[in-house]
Amino acid sequence: MNVSREALTSDGMETRGGFRDECGIFGIADSEDAANIAYLGLYALQHRGQESAGIATLDGELVRVEREMGYVADVFDEARLSRLPGRAAIGHVRYSTAGASHLANAQPIVFATGRGPLALAHNGNLVNAREIRRRLEQSGALFTTTSDSEVILHLVARSKAPDVASALAEALLDVQGGYSILVLSLEGIFAARDPHGIRPLSLGTREGSPVVASETCAFDLIEARFERDVEPGEIVRLSRAGVTGRRFAIANSTPCIFEHVYFARPDSTVFGKSVAASREAFGARLAREHPAEADLVVPVPDSGMYAALGYARESGIPFALGLVRNHYVGRTFIEPKQAIRHFGVKVKLNPVRDVVEGKRIVLVDDSIVRGTTSKKIVRMLREAGVREIHMRVSSPPTMASCHYGIDTPTRRELIAANSSVEEIRQFIGADSLGYLSTEGMLEAFGRPLQATCAACFTGVYPVEIPEEELEKEGAVAR
Amino acid sequence: MNVSREALTSDGMETRGGFRDECGIFGIADSEDAANIAYLGLYALQHRGQESAGIATLDGELVRVEREMGYVADVFDEARLSRLPGRAAIGHVRYSTAGASHLANAQPIVFATGRGPLALAHNGNLVNAREIRRRLEQSGALFTTTSDSEVILHLVARSKAPDVASALAEALLDVQGGYSILVLSLEGIFAARDPHGIRPLSLGTREGSPVVASETCAFDLIEARFERDVEPGEIVRLSRAGVTGRRFAIANSTPCIFEHVYFARPDSTVFGKSVAASREAFGARLAREHPAEADLVVPVPDSGMYAALGYARESGIPFALGLVRNHYVGRTFIEPKQAIRHFGVKVKLNPVRDVVEGKRIVLVDDSIVRGTTSKKIVRMLREAGVREIHMRVSSPPTMASCHYGIDTPTRRELIAANSSVEEIRQFIGADSLGYLSTEGMLEAFGRPLQATCAACFTGVYPVEIPEEELEKEGAVAR
Amino acid sequence: MNVSREALTSDGMETRGGFRDECGIFGIADSEDAANIAYLGLYALQHRGQESAGIATLDGELVRVEREMGYVADVFDEARLSRLPGRAAIGHVRYSTAGASHLANAQPIVFATGRGPLALAHNGNLVNAREIRRRLEQSGALFTTTSDSEVILHLVARSKAPDVASALAEALLDVQGGYSILVLSLEGIFAARDPHGIRPLSLGTREGSPVVASETCAFDLIEARFERDVEPGEIVRLSRAGVTGRRFAIANSTPCIFEHVYFARPDSTVFGKSVAASREAFGARLAREHPAEADLVVPVPDSGMYAALGYARESGIPFALGLVRNHYVGRTFIEPKQAIRHFGVKVKLNPVRDVVEGKRIVLVDDSIVRGTTSKKIVRMLREAGVREIHMRVSSPPTMASCHYGIDTPTRRELIAANSSVEEIRQFIGADSLGYLSTEGMLEAFGRPLQATCAACFTGVYPVEIPEEELEKEGAVAR
Amino acid sequence: MNVSREALTSDGMETRGGFRDECGIFGIADSEDAANIAYLGLYALQHRGQESAGIATLDGELVRVEREMGYVADVFDEARLSRLPGRAAIGHVRYSTAGASHLANAQPIVFATGRGPLALAHNGNLVNAREIRRRLEQSGALFTTTSDSEVILHLVARSKAPDVASALAEALLDVQGGYSILVLSLEGIFAARDPHGIRPLSLGTREGSPVVASETCAFDLIEARFERDVEPGEIVRLSRAGVTGRRFAIANSTPCIFEHVYFARPDSTVFGKSVAASREAFGARLAREHPAEADLVVPVPDSGMYAALGYARESGIPFALGLVRNHYVGRTFIEPKQAIRHFGVKVKLNPVRDVVEGKRIVLVDDSIVRGTTSKKIVRMLREAGVREIHMRVSSPPTMASCHYGIDTPTRRELIAANSSVEEIRQFIGADSLGYLSTEGMLEAFGRPLQATCAACFTGVYPVEIPEEELEKEGAVAR
Repeated sequence: MNVSREALTSDGMETRGGFRDECGIFGIADSEDAANIAYLGLYALQHRGQESAGIATLDGELVRVEREMGYVADVFDEARLSRLPGRAAIGHVRYSTAGASHLANAQPIVFATGRGPLALAHNGNLVNAREIRRRLEQSGALFTTTSDSEVILHLVARSKAPDVASALAEALLDVQGGYSILVLSLEGIFAARDPHGIRPLSLGTREGSPVVASETCAFDLIEARFERDVEPGEIVRLSRAGVTGRRFAIANSTPCIFEHVYFARPDSTVFGKSVAASREAFGARLAREHPAEADLVVPVPDSGMYAALGYARESGIPFALGLVRNHYVGRTFIEPKQAIRHFGVKVKLNPVRDVVEGKRIVLVDDSIVRGTTSKKIVRMLREAGVREIHMRVSSPPTMASCHYGIDTPTRRELIAANSSVEEIRQFIGADSLGYLSTEGMLEAFGRPLQATCAACFTGVYPVEIPEEELEKEGAVAR
Repeated sequence: MNVSREALTSDGMETRGGFRDECGIFGIADSEDAANIAYLGLYALQHRGQESAGIATLDGELVRVEREMGYVADVFDEARLSRLPGRAAIGHVRYSTAGASHLANAQPIVFATGRGPLALAHNGNLVNAREIRRRLEQSGALFTTTSDSEVILHLVARSKAPDVASALAEALLDVQGGYSILVLSLEGIFAARDPHGIRPLSLGTREGSPVVASETCAFDLIEARFERDVEPGEIVRLSRAGVTGRRFAIANSTPCIFEHVYFARPDSTVFGKSVAASREAFGARLAREHPAEADLVVPVPDSGMYAALGYARESGIPFALGLVRNHYVGRTFIEPKQAIRHFGVKVKLNPVRDVVEGKRIVLVDDSIVRGTTSKKIVRMLREAGVREIHMRVSSPPTMASCHYGIDTPTRRELIAANSSVEEIRQFIGADSLGYLSTEGMLEAFGRPLQATCAACFTGVYPVEIPEEELEKEGAVAR
Repeated sequence: MNVSREALTSDGMETRGGFRDECGIFGIADSEDAANIAYLGLYALQHRGQESAGIATLDGELVRVEREMGYVADVFDEARLSRLPGRAAIGHVRYSTAGASHLANAQPIVFATGRGPLALAHNGNLVNAREIRRRLEQSGALFTTTSDSEVILHLVARSKAPDVASALAEALLDVQGGYSILVLSLEGIFAARDPHGIRPLSLGTREGSPVVASETCAFDLIEARFERDVEPGEIVRLSRAGVTGRRFAIANSTPCIFEHVYFARPDSTVFGKSVAASREAFGARLAREHPAEADLVVPVPDSGMYAALGYARESGIPFALGLVRNHYVGRTFIEPKQAIRHFGVKVKLNPVRDVVEGKRIVLVDDSIVRGTTSKKIVRMLREAGVREIHMRVSSPPTMASCHYGIDTPTRRELIAANSSVEEIRQFIGADSLGYLSTEGMLEAFGRPLQATCAACFTGVYPVEIPEEELEKEGAVAR
Repeated sequence: MNVSREALTSDGMETRGGFRDECGIFGIADSEDAANIAYLGLYALQHRGQESAGIATLDGELVRVEREMGYVADVFDEARLSRLPGRAAIGHVRYSTAGASHLANAQPIVFATGRGPLALAHNGNLVNAREIRRRLEQSGALFTTTSDSEVILHLVARSKAPDVASALAEALLDVQGGYSILVLSLEGIFAARDPHGIRPLSLGTREGSPVVASETCAFDLIEARFERDVEPGEIVRLSRAGVTGRRFAIANSTPCIFEHVYFARPDSTVFGKSVAASREAFGARLAREHPAEADLVVPVPDSGMYAALGYARESGIPFALGLVRNHYVGRTFIEPKQAIRHFGVKVKLNPVRDVVEGKRIVLVDDSIVRGTTSKKIVRMLREAGVREIHMRVSSPPTMASCHYGIDTPTRRELIAANSSVEEIRQFIGADSLGYLSTEGMLEAFGRPLQATCAACFTGVYPVEIPEEELEKEGAVAR
């Protein structure tokens, strides 16, 4: 394994991918079993990042960290967890983005500073990290990762504030973007969300110990009680005496609707709402907006399941499992030398001929990104004898890249940014195609547009994106 | 990793587990890409065995084999496949049975013999292997594995028959049990099923090359066309000129119904029937036999999905995804030091509170083995606010162990072998409990009892089980 | 790592290398710490085989084995040794022969038989293994390795003799060659040497427990007392009550002189003689046979050290360390893309310019095999400023292959089998070249030719080599 | 493997070991094969550090690094070297110090800075690193390693100087200690030695490409020509146009004599002198200072070899190889559960009884550190029948710790810092004991005391050691 390769360009950043990781974070304070519970918390958050996993603990004055490429259950064994003593822990899982996988970018990142050792776990993206980094480098700072998170610790270390909480508040006023972070220090664990609350972060209690996680499904596994979300613009210190928060910034709250559309687990409550319920509502609304004459409603598993159920209930068309998903898909897969059509999709999905043959189906998925996968699924279903395919998408056309931490392709690659709905339908080969409208989605979600980040659907960004980021993405040149 | 540990007792067998593996097998002849296609075939059969994977190829006069503990996608990479040249390949995946995991037992097994090198991949179990092995050992045979498959190759090697096909026929007349096997030799690939056809084995064609697999889902991935099943008691030789079969024994056909209840993939056609269709039929019949006053039908994912759909459709009660499954469960999982209730189940399943809270649900699963998992699921659902739980099982009570290759606990551990339905209901804590009747199951399956192996439900074994095997299982002493 | 690759040709043997391994073996009975002591014993015998290491123990009726490619210290850790309980152990290290490295050929080999489990560790070579194997395969035997050792266990398993000792005696009367073996069985550990006693095997005692090893240096490390050699043609059973031997065959004793020339460790006593003393005597005799006008005697380290000391003492020319050896040479070494002259030798040896510059040196090595290494050393020394190089070899010209277990090239590749001494001198580029005479070597060794195996120098084999083996070697065709 | 564990205390340093590593460094510029040649260079320097190995290359604007725990030949394979394209490379091997082995401390270390990426490889120790680090942390610097080398890159990054060379000069004026360093930057490779030239660093040329290495033995392997040493206080830039140097500081030159006594390879020329010649001269002088009535001169291999030869020649007593060294000693070794006397030494060394039995010997070693190893060797030799043991040490008593990069125990542990020669003799059990005098050593070395760092023998440090370092060592309290 290539465990110690780090690639640093002269401007210290990689153009592709580096700034676009979705992640999951977890923390626990004042617990006898901190590393072990953090391991379980990360395990429940595995869907938020399969590339690497790491845990840092505080034991006396020592911060230890173990992190590696791979799944949580593969990275950690008992021997490794036993090397993480201490009553406070933070953990991190990172999403796999092709080509930019370095151990050096695995988190938590840990540094020795004038304030003692600091560890940080970060979910989201800072839109002005490049600019701050340049400024810091000019004044002599050394960077070890290509991750935007590193700037936060530099700012904390350089702050003249009297304590970590104040230094962190200062640092967070400097950075902009959508993020949730955890910082482990000699002064305790701190949790914070960006002023717009774009990324989720929830607080809970487990046998008296305060816990914090990207999603509530982590609380279910460890039998913690959900308490409340960290507020947008809030810094919270976790301790057994109770969490204590302070507001470092105030802005209008715009939580990311894509967490509900696709990213979060259906059994989580995110931004105060059940994800499963949102998806069923999207599907039901979709059935009203784009009805179809069909025999069956078939989800693309697993992401389209709840929306398909919602569609089926609202439309009265029977729900059917016409596609089976193979859950053993590994990290790498060897392609046959001889061509197999739609190979990439076949490895994951297979039609159940007996269920779909001769049928007219409504095929429900959560989104269409490049369109190539949908195209392969449509062909595969036709080859299995499906008579008509009415593709229904439980969100609006994806038009713009996310700059707040979800790994989306550039606009150039987004089919909906470059084609009409009819062109897309032709491309994927469906008999009809219907997207949920933005209004429909927001209504089902229960928040108005100005109180939601729906930038990937609307191109309207609640936190301004610097010109240079847009250029890198190719969004400006268009 | 424990790659070269082999444990051999003085009688050469391990009492526990050794004889009870369910597996998947795949073969291809006359193909340029044999190892690569075998890899894909095994990948599609991964659900039949997650413990080890192996492929053997024939290249000129050389048989090569690569096998290791682990998933297909982890065991094989391009470098390893490139060490397997040749136009004929057989492959094997083996089920994980706690404690008896040795590389030595991974397949294909390969030996040099007077007939040249022979490789064997085997799915099923021989009930008289112990007796034959004793006989062979007395006459000077050396054994290297604790697997029952090894006796077949000894018998082939010792036969005086003029060719491998005839020697194999002779050997298979000697052994008894439920099995499908593939043999790779200098004379080609041979595929055979036991005279009762208990385990499945299907033939197909891929770009002119004959292929053979435990289930048809393997054909879908590699884009092969299904041709026919290997017949019970038939030996088939695979070649581009066409498969040629011969009958080595004739008996009444009794295919294993448990393949349809639980084991096979829903998108496979097994014994000429769609597995998904069987399961929906079981669920529908179950709804008629055991109706319930409820708000939702909730499957235990993934095994209860199709039966729950069948139940929902037949009953008119809405289908709902009230339990979410975490698909990242690794091979080993570290338990927290502090007690977490129902931990084992929580790692895999989590209720979706918003879906089930306050509801009366029909909970559908394919079977109840020891009862402990069902008990934990019931409790977990109650804690999530479910009002009533009506457990429905889409097969009859599991009363007896399988001796034909599916790893089931001994009778002592089977809750239905030792308790009434009412006692089981109380144990698991459901409000009501209903099992599909044997008659109902067979009707839905479309075969009479005498033409089906339903031994795990009825205790009636189509192939007689020697006294010593029953004693080992503890079935006699009861 | 390629842990489970086995390659079996249709005649079950590999032509090259398979029959030519030098190895080290070790055994201990009736010891609380058997696996641990075996590990230390093998560690001291590491020079006899660096390819693979393995230990088998007997615990009750169970034989366990752990073996893997690599050095003893890398293969075994505490966890692995703890998987080897039991009071009796045998161990094996195997020499690396290019291309024929399989885990399947690592020893001890273990089989289940009608006599219970049997494990075997073997040093040497059976000249009629191919013939016996063919016979056994014809009668239905299955072979799993390409090693000649496997036939011995087949013969033991097939024998009708009442106990393992008698069956082993029967088997050893059937095989021919030069070998020492250890067999672990339910009836204890047995040690045996071939009737001519070609390979060494010594008995000792450690705190009351009997031990057996290829060389006495293993006894030094574990603080065992040397007792006696296993006699040629003797089978010994190890037990705390004392070793009990029986003679299964009687022949004239012809121990391998090459053990003293090169193979054994200088601190071992082999065949009742100190290896260091033999080498010094060879060097002294060489000085008398081939004096030289020179300033320094320089050994090729490490093999030429003692002979060079003997030469220096006898001649009165000062001994000097003019070549330094790098002991970190790994298993694989990456060649530079750009040519570096004499690269292979440079990785291991470097001249000490300050010591040799401007000097006339006597360069002492134990043997010249292909001549290419000597040629590179001579050039390297000339480039370091040596004025004259008088190469002296402390054994006669190597003319013939070993068929009793030392990996030597075929005659075709042996420079001395195809060239005169003067031709060799010209090839390697020395100013003069002198080999020890056969008579001189034997006198220094203290045994007459008829009581020594010096086949590699004389081409006279004490145990007849079958025609087909000589053909494989190409010795006949010449 | 524990690849990503880093332990950082709140002051960012570990008390034990962290500041005391001896290492080897290598660099090459303007070469097509840079990584490959660096690999070979490090391989030749392996004796200077067996804990970890790493190489960084510059390719366009990208610096890549590969590093890992282990031997050079184990860390690098072809795949890994192929991930290091570029025409400039620096490499590093690090010495193993018990307990403080972290991948995080492996070098080269690499950072992104305002001057572009910088990589550093360092041999030696900075005595004021702790103080500078504290200062830097106070002003907001983040540290990732516990190595003192990191401060240099911080100082370079923070310098306002116009180019890397000037910034490096500025940084090196700030730090104090004994060191040689290599810096890889967009402006080329820079090599520097501390103003006193305590650690070695040599320049050479290989097919027109400039190379730099800790010792000249690295040049021999890659067939480079030695040009000159980097001067004390000089910074050199390597380029095909020729190396260009500048003096950043001037001080009296005090090269480390311990490189000649023990550390460097005998085939290297260090500080303009042959190491082998120095050692022979030490041995000869020792024979004059401490003659002995004896039959043999026996070296402790391998470190005492050349000194023993010098002693033998001067005294006329025959040189003999009475101790054999086992070169297969691995990184970890499993101790037997039962006690074996002098175990640690036995694993490495074994007496050759036949050579030493009944003899009076002069036993020559390069130094005595704690005395425990010498004591075990003496006992082992007595048990092998040696009649008299006259221990002779080819350097003066080791009295003080090294603070310039050689890992020595604290004074408390140095037997010569706490005992008279007679007490040491009694402790090790020799019949007589003689150390080379400081004057004798210096005379043989050919430099006066004021032009040599002999601090470990004299306690006089050419570069002042801060109070806090001495306190940590326990030197002050005594």
